[in-house]
Amino acid sequence: MGKQDSKISSKNGGKAKGNQGAPRLGRKDYEAALAPMLLELMQVSRWLAHTNKRLLVIFEGRDTAGKSGVIHAIASALDPRRCEVVALSKPSDTEMTQWYFQRYVPHLPAGGHVALFDRSWYNRAGVEKVMGFCSDEEHERFLREAPLFELSLVNDGMLIFKYWLTVDQAEQEARFAERLADPLKRWKLSPVDVVARTKYAEYGKARNAMLKATHTAHAPWTLVDFNDQRLGRLTLIRHLLDHLPDQAVPEQRFEMPPLKGKPARESFSDAHRPISAFTSPLFSPLDIANSND
Amino acid sequence: MGKQDSKISSKNGGKAKGNQGAPRLGRKDYEAALAPMLLELMQVSRWLAHTNKRLLVIFEGRDTAGKSGVIHAIASALDPRRCEVVALSKPSDTEMTQWYFQRYVPHLPAGGHVALFDRSWYNRAGVEKVMGFCSDEEHERFLREAPLFELSLVNDGMLIFKYWLTVDQAEQEARFAERLADPLKRWKLSPVDVVARTKYAEYGKARNAMLKATHTAHAPWTLVDFNDQRLGRLTLIRHLLDHLPDQAVPEQRFEMPPLKGKPARESFSDAHRPISAFTSPLFSPLDIANSND
Amino acid sequence: MGKQDSKISSKNGGKAKGNQGAPRLGRKDYEAALAPMLLELMQVSRWLAHTNKRLLVIFEGRDTAGKSGVIHAIASALDPRRCEVVALSKPSDTEMTQWYFQRYVPHLPAGGHVALFDRSWYNRAGVEKVMGFCSDEEHERFLREAPLFELSLVNDGMLIFKYWLTVDQAEQEARFAERLADPLKRWKLSPVDVVARTKYAEYGKARNAMLKATHTAHAPWTLVDFNDQRLGRLTLIRHLLDHLPDQAVPEQRFEMPPLKGKPARESFSDAHRPISAFTSPLFSPLDIANSND
Amino acid sequence: MGKQDSKISSKNGGKAKGNQGAPRLGRKDYEAALAPMLLELMQVSRWLAHTNKRLLVIFEGRDTAGKSGVIHAIASALDPRRCEVVALSKPSDTEMTQWYFQRYVPHLPAGGHVALFDRSWYNRAGVEKVMGFCSDEEHERFLREAPLFELSLVNDGMLIFKYWLTVDQAEQEARFAERLADPLKRWKLSPVDVVARTKYAEYGKARNAMLKATHTAHAPWTLVDFNDQRLGRLTLIRHLLDHLPDQAVPEQRFEMPPLKGKPARESFSDAHRPISAFTSPLFSPLDIANSND
Repeated sequence: MGKQDSKISSKNGGKAKGNQGAPRLGRKDYEAALAPMLLELMQVSRWLAHTNKRLLVIFEGRDTAGKSGVIHAIASALDPRRCEVVALSKPSDTEMTQWYFQRYVPHLPAGGHVALFDRSWYNRAGVEKVMGFCSDEEHERFLREAPLFELSLVNDGMLIFKYWLTVDQAEQEARFAERLADPLKRWKLSPVDVVARTKYAEYGKARNAMLKATHTAHAPWTLVDFNDQRLGRLTLIRHLLDHLPDQAVPEQRFEMPPLKGKPARESFSDAHRPISAFTSPLFSPLDIANSND
Repeated sequence: MGKQDSKISSKNGGKAKGNQGAPRLGRKDYEAALAPMLLELMQVSRWLAHTNKRLLVIFEGRDTAGKSGVIHAIASALDPRRCEVVALSKPSDTEMTQWYFQRYVPHLPAGGHVALFDRSWYNRAGVEKVMGFCSDEEHERFLREAPLFELSLVNDGMLIFKYWLTVDQAEQEARFAERLADPLKRWKLSPVDVVARTKYAEYGKARNAMLKATHTAHAPWTLVDFNDQRLGRLTLIRHLLDHLPDQAVPEQRFEMPPLKGKPARESFSDAHRPISAFTSPLFSPLDIANSND
Repeated sequence: MGKQDSKISSKNGGKAKGNQGAPRLGRKDYEAALAPMLLELMQVSRWLAHTNKRLLVIFEGRDTAGKSGVIHAIASALDPRRCEVVALSKPSDTEMTQWYFQRYVPHLPAGGHVALFDRSWYNRAGVEKVMGFCSDEEHERFLREAPLFELSLVNDGMLIFKYWLTVDQAEQEARFAERLADPLKRWKLSPVDVVARTKYAEYGKARNAMLKATHTAHAPWTLVDFNDQRLGRLTLIRHLLDHLPDQAVPEQRFEMPPLKGKPARESFSDAHRPISAFTSPLFSPLDIANSND
Repeated sequence: MGKQDSKISSKNGGKAKGNQGAPRLGRKDYEAALAPMLLELMQVSRWLAHTNKRLLVIFEGRDTAGKSGVIHAIASALDPRRCEVVALSKPSDTEMTQWYFQRYVPHLPAGGHVALFDRSWYNRAGVEKVMGFCSDEEHERFLREAPLFELSLVNDGMLIFKYWLTVDQAEQEARFAERLADPLKRWKLSPVDVVARTKYAEYGKARNAMLKATHTAHAPWTLVDFNDQRLGRLTLIRHLLDHLPDQAVPEQRFEMPPLKGKPARESFSDAHRPISAFTSPLFSPLDIANSND
């Protein structure tokens, strides 16, 4: 392992150091490794559409682990008309009184679709347990019920993958600090996060109880190391692809015969002309041009 | 203008040439100009939440013009819990029989929210008109009704912006060819597109009729030149920001007191260990390390 | 009129006296007059389905006037698969921030359907105005906007009828007292009702302002006297029928050929036998048999 | 039993003869026995609201058995804001590809609510099986899955009752003939019904297989004899009440202090006067008055 480590770190110079000083996968390495996987994902999507099969992927893990990043990477390769990212907010008062799984069920994938769950019913085994948002009795019942619920889905033919993204606390702390410093990311922080970060050990304990109860033959968990987020994404996507059937379905191809005649330009009435940075007084293109100086 | 052009093109070397040979804004210039605008957008979002105001932005324009790109840029700066991207697929059989605006109404923004419409009710003034998916009578009625519908929203206090993204045909053709060549983008192409590209002039004519009928004082159109997509994005976002109130609302800030004790590491039972590219046989890290060779 | 009055009262003996002592339409007279109208309603429903037209009927009026009774009578003659009774509860916090008409729009009828609105957007011109649940500015804006909203629906081809059910206060008081006395009807009473009954005059005033602003050529109001509920129902339904096209659409008919062989009886395993009042110890059939003694 | 039989038949003269000549419960006996049960149902509803408990009642049975009649009787005693009648139409193309239970789940009762299912997921064990709308494999999987699905609901605290309404074929035939003859009921007949009636035995066989597989300790079936619909309703409601806790929750009571002053009469502007059968030319009140002659 050391060999590869050094190779990567040498490739990316000092830039690819992680928050803890460990070497990290550089952006170019990442993109080069990712590109062929995205093509494979797209083929999976075609295969699902062709066979009307359903794919459900659950992403759980610690705050800052990188759930939304890997979900975004996967979704970018899929036809959005057949891919739903499901990130439910906290339950409403009415939902709190319903069957625990009820609010998730409408988001389960239909035939030919992929549903990517950014958190899921496993909230009850994580944040709800640790922060005291459910009773012990509810927590225990959930651990008994979840495998049966998932079994019913699997028996119905649904493909289910469950990933839990791991990250060490030092790395998590570094990411929290980054978020706090970045005005574009700060909205992600909530009072619950501030409390949650002090409960690192409790979250780990709750996760282990969850694994013990809900790691089943029909719907196993896979833990993925996300201390290096890029590497984590590659690992997770590779794992997913390796556990899906590898069946090529031919793409529908279109011909684009040459246009007749010269390509037209936009033509406008005097009343409506497009604005652009170079023609509009709205802002100075010079500012743009100088922005790298 | 020439001055700026040359400046930009010199900065970005040969890479920033557009499909038609025109100089293009380079990625770094783009990102440098975009960053402060994203902060302003985030402030807008906070202001909306604070005042419970609603913001509706409609994006229309030619195929390939870059609607989803600019929508993605804007959405990236907004709290996803209060920002919806609305891209409806074609109407169902039932929806076809309903009040024309009915299927759009549930997606209008609630208080404090932003709705970004990737296409909208103006489908009827564009693709439906040009491709013959509606009757002339329906088209004409729509042109009469849309301003009244929007007036009702504006009278109710909603902020509405309508952008139409322009692109010359040569540029559009180049982008279609790119999509056809890129397996990750090909799914965006449909048989309708293949026909639509031969109707460039008809789309322009339909747009001009639309502008004439629906460019109103209460909900005016703004055309934005998207022959250079990055420049188009900056132009559009700048325009949007300059037409929204510039009222700072203080951010809710969190303290992150230092943790007590040494940061923990993930600890697992033997049964569950995270996989990673370096420890798992799933794929060879060497392949990654070599990917830039 | 006196002649008919006496005729009816003589027919029904003392029973058909209204709360204020006025003669009332007896149940048998009512049912006899209603039956042929229900057949006509059913034909309307078939005509709607055949032509894919949409019918929206709004029922407003004073508390206890009899909205749900007449709605129930109409709905009983229509295929429930193409008839929706829409009785929205008070708006949620989110709905309060939306475009005023937004929460009603999803319930507008689709092609071939009838929507019967038990209260409607006119809440703002009635209870909201009288009880102070909206501002004067919102009330006035509503009175301006409602006709335009309805015009858009009518221009889209929707058939709209608006009925306001009238009842004198003495009659209303009598009905409130009945509800209070009847344990099966008491749930209909709410604290708002208790206050509302003291505001009879204000409701009348608000109604008159509503009529002035929203009684339009494209969507006129019809007031119907519901001091006698049965008579009111007949009046309203007759009015509705007389203002809808009278076009017969042939019914789809089924043949029911005779069964071959002797009709079977239910047959059960020993483990499962149906219960009935005569075979089950659950309650004594004697109690039933004696109930009329 | 013979004694009660004769008593009832003597009470109701010749009218209360059933289609097969058996004595039937007369309307007055029925209403007298029903009234106190409706009060008990209303108390159940208050108890559910008070405890936030959920009640799910499933009604299955043969065509014409009387499901909607008994559902209507029960619903009439419950606050409609906390009682949903769920009668789903056949699954859409998308729903056909989903988890079998998915389309039913959104209709499960929330806290304090009653859901009355007019048909249910047991369609698969009845009409779908008999008419060949599902495969044998799907049918068998359903019989295995339904008890587990229901167990999850029961473990979550939901109260579940499952009733199957029985009717002999001669009675069913008589009711089909009545429907065919009654223009107000004919819409209930569909081509599927016409075929279904020839498959009486197959439905019975399918029901017995269903009972064998899904009559569980946690969610047992109760068969109810509906050859006499009124008697069946009483039997079913009595059974339901006897299996629910008998806990009184005090009613919220309102005071209705006397109004000050003389009750007002409706007052209108000249432009708007209510119509009524006696004042409007729409139809002749004489027709009504004479209707019983």
